[in-house]
Amino acid sequence: MEYTEAWLKYRRLSLSRQQCEERLYDSLISYAIPFEEGLKESPCFGALISEFENGVEALLGMRPQRVTDGSETLRFAVDPAFGSEDAYSIDFTQNGKNGAITASDVRGLLYGVFHLLRLVATGKSLADFSQTCVPSNPLRMLNHWDNMDGSIERGYSGRSFFFADDQVLVNDRTRAYARLVASVGINAVVINNVNVKNAATYLITDRYFDKVRALSEIFDEYGIALYLSLNFAAPMELGGLDKSDPLDPGVIEWWQKKMAEVFIAVPKLGGFLVKADSEGRPGPFTYGRDHADGANMLARAVAPYGGRIIWRCFVYNCRQDWRDTKTDRARSGYDNFMPLDGRFLDNVILQIKNGPMDFQVREPVHPLFGGLMKTNQMLEVQIAQEYTGQQKHVCYLMPMFKEILDFKTYMPGHEDATVADIISTRTLKNANGGIVAVANTGNDENWTGHDFAAANLFGFGRLAFDTTLDPESIAREWAELTFAGSTKAAIDAIVNILMRSWPAYEKYTSPLGIGWMVNPNHHYGPNVEGYEFDRWGTYHRANWRGIGVDRTTKGTGYTMQYREPNASMYEHVETCPEELLLFFHFIPYDYRLKTGKTLIQHIYDTHFEGAQDAADFLDTWKNLDGQISDKEAYERVLERLKIQAESAVEWRDRINTYFYRHCGTEDEHGRKIYE
Amino acid sequence: MEYTEAWLKYRRLSLSRQQCEERLYDSLISYAIPFEEGLKESPCFGALISEFENGVEALLGMRPQRVTDGSETLRFAVDPAFGSEDAYSIDFTQNGKNGAITASDVRGLLYGVFHLLRLVATGKSLADFSQTCVPSNPLRMLNHWDNMDGSIERGYSGRSFFFADDQVLVNDRTRAYARLVASVGINAVVINNVNVKNAATYLITDRYFDKVRALSEIFDEYGIALYLSLNFAAPMELGGLDKSDPLDPGVIEWWQKKMAEVFIAVPKLGGFLVKADSEGRPGPFTYGRDHADGANMLARAVAPYGGRIIWRCFVYNCRQDWRDTKTDRARSGYDNFMPLDGRFLDNVILQIKNGPMDFQVREPVHPLFGGLMKTNQMLEVQIAQEYTGQQKHVCYLMPMFKEILDFKTYMPGHEDATVADIISTRTLKNANGGIVAVANTGNDENWTGHDFAAANLFGFGRLAFDTTLDPESIAREWAELTFAGSTKAAIDAIVNILMRSWPAYEKYTSPLGIGWMVNPNHHYGPNVEGYEFDRWGTYHRANWRGIGVDRTTKGTGYTMQYREPNASMYEHVETCPEELLLFFHFIPYDYRLKTGKTLIQHIYDTHFEGAQDAADFLDTWKNLDGQISDKEAYERVLERLKIQAESAVEWRDRINTYFYRHCGTEDEHGRKIYE
Repeated sequence: MEYTEAWLKYRRLSLSRQQCEERLYDSLISYAIPFEEGLKESPCFGALISEFENGVEALLGMRPQRVTDGSETLRFAVDPAFGSEDAYSIDFTQNGKNGAITASDVRGLLYGVFHLLRLVATGKSLADFSQTCVPSNPLRMLNHWDNMDGSIERGYSGRSFFFADDQVLVNDRTRAYARLVASVGINAVVINNVNVKNAATYLITDRYFDKVRALSEIFDEYGIALYLSLNFAAPMELGGLDKSDPLDPGVIEWWQKKMAEVFIAVPKLGGFLVKADSEGRPGPFTYGRDHADGANMLARAVAPYGGRIIWRCFVYNCRQDWRDTKTDRARSGYDNFMPLDGRFLDNVILQIKNGPMDFQVREPVHPLFGGLMKTNQMLEVQIAQEYTGQQKHVCYLMPMFKEILDFKTYMPGHEDATVADIISTRTLKNANGGIVAVANTGNDENWTGHDFAAANLFGFGRLAFDTTLDPESIAREWAELTFAGSTKAAIDAIVNILMRSWPAYEKYTSPLGIGWMVNPNHHYGPNVEGYEFDRWGTYHRANWRGIGVDRTTKGTGYTMQYREPNASMYEHVETCPEELLLFFHFIPYDYRLKTGKTLIQHIYDTHFEGAQDAADFLDTWKNLDGQISDKEAYERVLERLKIQAESAVEWRDRINTYFYRHCGTEDEHGRKIYE
Repeated sequence: MEYTEAWLKYRRLSLSRQQCEERLYDSLISYAIPFEEGLKESPCFGALISEFENGVEALLGMRPQRVTDGSETLRFAVDPAFGSEDAYSIDFTQNGKNGAITASDVRGLLYGVFHLLRLVATGKSLADFSQTCVPSNPLRMLNHWDNMDGSIERGYSGRSFFFADDQVLVNDRTRAYARLVASVGINAVVINNVNVKNAATYLITDRYFDKVRALSEIFDEYGIALYLSLNFAAPMELGGLDKSDPLDPGVIEWWQKKMAEVFIAVPKLGGFLVKADSEGRPGPFTYGRDHADGANMLARAVAPYGGRIIWRCFVYNCRQDWRDTKTDRARSGYDNFMPLDGRFLDNVILQIKNGPMDFQVREPVHPLFGGLMKTNQMLEVQIAQEYTGQQKHVCYLMPMFKEILDFKTYMPGHEDATVADIISTRTLKNANGGIVAVANTGNDENWTGHDFAAANLFGFGRLAFDTTLDPESIAREWAELTFAGSTKAAIDAIVNILMRSWPAYEKYTSPLGIGWMVNPNHHYGPNVEGYEFDRWGTYHRANWRGIGVDRTTKGTGYTMQYREPNASMYEHVETCPEELLLFFHFIPYDYRLKTGKTLIQHIYDTHFEGAQDAADFLDTWKNLDGQISDKEAYERVLERLKIQAESAVEWRDRINTYFYRHCGTEDEHGRKIYE
């Protein structure tokens, strides 16, 4: 199957000689790598050279020459004393003409080359350019929910390129994928679905070792560690044991032998991701053990090989009764894991979703962030747009992620610590954390279904590497790289659409943090009561008076899982951020928001606005016909923006009608609300 | 797989000599069949003899002897002048000792034997017994929605016993099935799903002729004609033509050749059932033709072989927009078919669902009944309990069917004509009609999943044969046959549960004829807004003021599809039968019903009552422990009554909460309604 190079197109620049000179692009014509002989051992060496030479040639039409006579204009320098892993510097200030990329290892140099090529591809001048880049997070990971039959759970971009027909695929796209995600700093990838069933259970057996090793070696050439999702019940399903009890000596021994076997067969393996006791998956609860027991048992088994166990905190009662207003799914992650703080081994990392529910368009930050003090943590976000338009709608998520990363948790002793601080190495001692996204790729030609969804893949990597980046700058960089050769107006318009897209989606879907209101199972499109009486704990409790869930101390008490002053902020209607008002409080329709509008009028207004935004995106795009360099991408985007505009109208009408049918309040502006 | 004999158990009676004598059972000890040599040619002859001999022996412990010396005490007489097809008489009044069964053919005798055995099995005396039975309907049909992969669309009793793995099954269960349904008078069976796809399209090719013929011959031994559902696009899918246009000479010729081939291969075939232009199935609309064009084309092709075309009227727009309050799915059958009245050939029968929607627990009678004046018609009901508890809930449907059959249509010139009159031969000239049920069987041991669901299979056959029967009598007869050997109290309790079951289901589910409120797709369990914004045209329009669909002349105008005075009766709130009030009118919650209760209080009350009824059924059954002869059946029923009681509570709570959330009205009796 054909596929694009996404943001790695390296389209030939049309520059005058003078422009090339002024921007110091001439300095890319010859390069040297001191101590090359030793560096050639590095798995990334080949990628470094080919990326640099091919990239420069594609962009500038001249192939760089490697020299050893001291005449180089660009130098790649490995200096073990340079700094932390994956850090690098790009420096063109030394003599006003020549440049240097310096890192502590070849992987750092490769990141530097990707960075350098981004600068050139977006026309930035290298003159006087000097920057040192230190990754914010040790782990910058993607989770693929790919099944071995080739399907992808919550996949909106075609089939898997890792698996088909219960086989592992290793082909040219494997390398293209590794290159693509390495270019934005991803250094760890889980290739299989967290729900490990059927053939996927056998990924840790010799049925698949050869292919998994081959895959891991290609990943390794781009500095990426391959991880696998693990079936906690493997001792039973593979080993024929009668239990998976993490404290049972037989089970412990089985895992120890199994891990020795796996790491010998696949030495580049980074470790394992585990979803246990969640949504029907097996786990330690079956045996009266807790999650620390489960995670530590596995962690001990992988420790001799430098392996990590990444343990998901998405544990909740998925057999709730809608009549039960005491049980609160939002509480469950904290309730389950907070008591275990300090009990996890150093090579265990808890993977915590950004919010307490499940990747809704708006959620409060998960209270485990700032709660846990002695546990390695990873932030889990989802760029697969499961609840944000499924890559039919444009919804650029970096502004959301940025808000999450910047959220102040008020962790005792680290009062200024944001989520970004906690998951990085900056706050917790011996931290071994990072950030992970549920990936949005598939074997669609353009990788992500919606071409604009690639901005989330690109953006996630960039933000994971540097959590201080500005979402709009990331969007612009992505647009300039992806749509190189388009007009300036087109790039501006794309950035404008991207930056307006999350707010628009939020406006025309479920209001003020209440979430859900989607069709069950597939989660696409509006269905206000779709989950209201279901077993998943996702209720909005709308009636003739108002809507919202009381999660204060008078309700489920969820607010008290936060550190002060956050707890009090959420507890009180007056101080609760209004975008989360209905998440924390039951609010009457006639309640006045800070804008002076009633809640019901706010709902109507935002839904009309959001649908109008979607219509605007489509109009904007139509007006760009002829201004986008990639005609096929233009048509693909056009098709999806049409779908979005129609779907937004459906959302608007269903939500407005739903509330109108409950309260009977007319729209102040007399717009059409269907009866 | 094992299977029961359902109501054909013929459990040995424990009778004294005197009782046998008094009831004239002694007269069953010897029998004669005059002109036997000629009658042996009849396909039903073997079934007649074996049923009689085995039945009497099982019931009375003595095997009847066939005599030819004039000493017989029971005589089977075929008299071609006796009367209409399938009619028979049983007469024990001639000399106070001997009996005779008389019919115009052997099939009539077989029906007579089944009748006689029912009398004996239920302990009725034959002394002075004399009855002539003339079937109400020429066609008494079952439609099986069995797919060739073995699944059953809307099947709740296991897998198909006609098909598995794309093969036709012919085995001992085939005969057991034929005997079972023939015993209650069924004389036509469609074995495959009306949605004809994949392998089923090939049932009219030599891939399956041998097995289909074998099946049809077994059916024939029990007087049953085998029918097939047809794919209207067969000329394209099988014939390689580029169209299925019913007026195209090539298509016509293809069908003529195909039908010649089919009827030569399967001479016992009765004809075909066609679902065209419905829910995605192909049909004449594709070519700008109408349903008369389509049906007549096929009818001409099968006419030389005595075949019939049964054409479904379930044609509607299944891509409706919920915002559109003008389009009314209820109107569509009439709108599509009424203009075609008189255009269908004599061997075409229109198959019309009992109501204008789709087998809801309560619907008005379809307005095509009484509308059509010059068209053969069959009434289609569904004993597969798709919308009435899916054979997890007990819902005995004969009271509903009886109401439908007794509905006066006010057809011009036949003002007293009920639906029963129209589908029989009594009203329409050259009528070729009858009644058909979507079947509720599968390969479950007890045939119907819920043992009590067999009462619907039994009852449907009995009612189809004699539309004047009383539902309670049918229920009692079924219970006495099925649970022979149980206590009198147990039989009474079963009859009581059956007779209360449809009203109970109606009470705890969707109120006053509005219908739906079920989970989409599978249709089990409550989901008030499950279809409210979907494309199927099944809306209830509930809001803070009230609920219901205005189908009067001020609304969709559906009421005017009825003949007067029915049209006016439905048009006005005051005269509209209250059980259908919300089907025809939007009614405010504070509207006072004839009981003096408000609508909302009626909703609350009926839902509490209905759930209580379901709880009562369970309690009643628990108290019968030890009183039911068939212990396994007892346990199966117990299990399902528990499920029903739980599900009824869920229905009660969701419906009550839904309305409470809309109107905020408290229950007058202070019962628990969840917020």
